[in-house]
Amino acid sequence: MRNAPAVVLLSGGLDSATALAMARERGFSCYALSVDYGQRHRAELEAARCVARAGVATEHRIMRVDLAGIGGSALTDLSIAVPETPTTGIPVTYVPARNTIMLALALGWAEVLGARDIFIGVNVLDASGYPDCRSEFITAFNALAVLATKAGVEGAPCTVHAPLIRLSKAEIIREGTRLGVDYGQTLSCYQPDPEGRACSRCDSCRLRRAGFAAAGIADPTRYQPPVV
Amino acid sequence: MRNAPAVVLLSGGLDSATALAMARERGFSCYALSVDYGQRHRAELEAARCVARAGVATEHRIMRVDLAGIGGSALTDLSIAVPETPTTGIPVTYVPARNTIMLALALGWAEVLGARDIFIGVNVLDASGYPDCRSEFITAFNALAVLATKAGVEGAPCTVHAPLIRLSKAEIIREGTRLGVDYGQTLSCYQPDPEGRACSRCDSCRLRRAGFAAAGIADPTRYQPPVV
Repeated sequence: MRNAPAVVLLSGGLDSATALAMARERGFSCYALSVDYGQRHRAELEAARCVARAGVATEHRIMRVDLAGIGGSALTDLSIAVPETPTTGIPVTYVPARNTIMLALALGWAEVLGARDIFIGVNVLDASGYPDCRSEFITAFNALAVLATKAGVEGAPCTVHAPLIRLSKAEIIREGTRLGVDYGQTLSCYQPDPEGRACSRCDSCRLRRAGFAAAGIADPTRYQPPVV
Repeated sequence: MRNAPAVVLLSGGLDSATALAMARERGFSCYALSVDYGQRHRAELEAARCVARAGVATEHRIMRVDLAGIGGSALTDLSIAVPETPTTGIPVTYVPARNTIMLALALGWAEVLGARDIFIGVNVLDASGYPDCRSEFITAFNALAVLATKAGVEGAPCTVHAPLIRLSKAEIIREGTRLGVDYGQTLSCYQPDPEGRACSRCDSCRLRRAGFAAAGIADPTRYQPPVV
């Protein structure tokens, strides 16, 4: 159905901006949802506002949930440093249950809107190895959504789509570029400076930078000047 | 393990107060979590504070999530009346995805605490027929939790327990009374007056009142004086 409502989780980063463009291309009327969870890189919420506007979201909502109060991640606890070299295993930038919380909020909004589709920009290649970015997780969430909601048990469940899940970062960038995404508006960095410029050293910056290089597309990211 | 941490979802109502007492009896150190989601019966959060104290919770945290901003329920949208006579099907007091959101928040806190157990006071008998109070829902959430978290994929998943799920309201009240729960501190009503007194007419009041009668236990609920 053309212009059917869909909820799109929008962090303000490269991946979710691409997911928004893909949902729009499929004809959805997009309700963008960002979550202010006390992340150290709150500048991404400003980026999300710009991306929602440029991506022609029907509405953009920022919901607050205080995950910094419980901590447990380098993204929510300023006493844990963001790694600047590759690490093994699930990195300390993993935020406990973050995507479960975000998808649950998206599910609630989707049900109120009568939307049967949710988009999330998770991907497993060129990613940090977070458990809640894997396809098994999305499949399990969809099984839950059928049972969790009135819409689901009445036969009209909501489905989570992860259209980037098997794309490399370069493929994501090429797809978004084809769809007109202005990546200069997006922010992927975990520790931007007060001007919202990327550090170029965190895991997220490294993956993004390598993606533009592999895609053969000029990187529009505003980086912090190198420390002399 | 005696004194292992567990997160207990605590609404301030009769069921969750009983679930807290049962978790304590099993030897858990209980971290009570209440969610201020913009519910019209915010007085239940005051009740939750008293219940957490009386129930010897190790810590009590109230997290805010603005579900009133999206509405879609008589509990979050003041323009939708709370039914005062029995209805068929899932009632308008159902809050879209509420228990999914609450369990997701509990899962995040549990992972930070290193807790492997979460308690929730849902039950299916003498209940309003909400989809996210059924055992299939809890089973699906537990399957998700294994995949959603670092703890889960590393072999130490968190499990949600719903110890009341197959108890009648009278059985719940008897069990809680045995464990010393002071139900006079709890608030189940969806539309209490400014003094926190129960209406006696909403679905939640009717189930609670009938439960005390069936249990043969004096009902300590403070009810609003009848309208003359």
